[in-house]
Amino acid sequence: MSFDITSYIRDIHDFPKDGILFKDITPVLSNPKALTGTVEALLKMAEGLKVDKVVAMESRGFMFGTLLAARLGAGFVPVRKPGKLPFSTLKEEYALEYGTDALEMHTDAIQEGDHVLIHDDVLATGGTAEATVKLVERAGGKVVQLSFLMDLLFLNGRDRLQEYEVKSLVSY
Amino acid sequence: MSFDITSYIRDIHDFPKDGILFKDITPVLSNPKALTGTVEALLKMAEGLKVDKVVAMESRGFMFGTLLAARLGAGFVPVRKPGKLPFSTLKEEYALEYGTDALEMHTDAIQEGDHVLIHDDVLATGGTAEATVKLVERAGGKVVQLSFLMDLLFLNGRDRLQEYEVKSLVSY
Repeated sequence: MSFDITSYIRDIHDFPKDGILFKDITPVLSNPKALTGTVEALLKMAEGLKVDKVVAMESRGFMFGTLLAARLGAGFVPVRKPGKLPFSTLKEEYALEYGTDALEMHTDAIQEGDHVLIHDDVLATGGTAEATVKLVERAGGKVVQLSFLMDLLFLNGRDRLQEYEVKSLVSY
Repeated sequence: MSFDITSYIRDIHDFPKDGILFKDITPVLSNPKALTGTVEALLKMAEGLKVDKVVAMESRGFMFGTLLAARLGAGFVPVRKPGKLPFSTLKEEYALEYGTDALEMHTDAIQEGDHVLIHDDVLATGGTAEATVKLVERAGGKVVQLSFLMDLLFLNGRDRLQEYEVKSLVSY
């Protein structure tokens, strides 16, 4: 494979706070070849899957999530922070280092039996991914893949998702 | 034209607060035909334009913004609320009904002379659109079109953008 996403991912030290090494994907987005190369690589990970809906988390997940949905001939479903979605919603809380946060999805976003691919840019601790799986399953969907640009292995996010197919373009 | 986006836009009364009629685009996104039909319609609005970068505002702008960028062979540049972008940024404040808010764009997102299409889902008062135009121009870009799914005409957003080509799929 000639396309290597890692050369477009930029390390930012101490963001969003001291001691964190942030993986910045904006160089992937701003380069047309990297943008389309990444979409093709994500599609290759999903090869052979029947996908009715791509569900992605606010807000970096929206970028490649919509691209994946359009290319797969699927619908796109945004999962957002509380209070952002205007229609009636399902809500799932998840634990943060200190306290909790929550994600919401519209109650009519998934139809019973829909095959769902969940996409986000980064798999870290897996808290948002696990909450999104729960939202999809409560709505009657079947998660066929969790798809990420990158997986931060040292945060062990895959441990929470052992029953599911988890794929990532790169691991750190 | 057989595709009509209006039949997929859902009216939500009193969101985000009493007296506001919110135009919900999630039904456009979740229907594969509406999703691709909307992309084709946006591309038709941009026909004949040379576009190097598509710049879109957080976070609903990211959805069709990335789709447009990929189809135009352009790069994608996110404009975000303060503190969200990890690299060095340009910042523009804009007025709200009470107080101000601000938007940021990475300093290296636009190259001098880049032809830029700005996309967002809704043109309302034009505050965020005008701030985004300023960010693009400060970075040396040339705005070739502002592209929206819908334009809320009674809020007069076009008045602030008279020097630019403003296009919208539908107007309310």
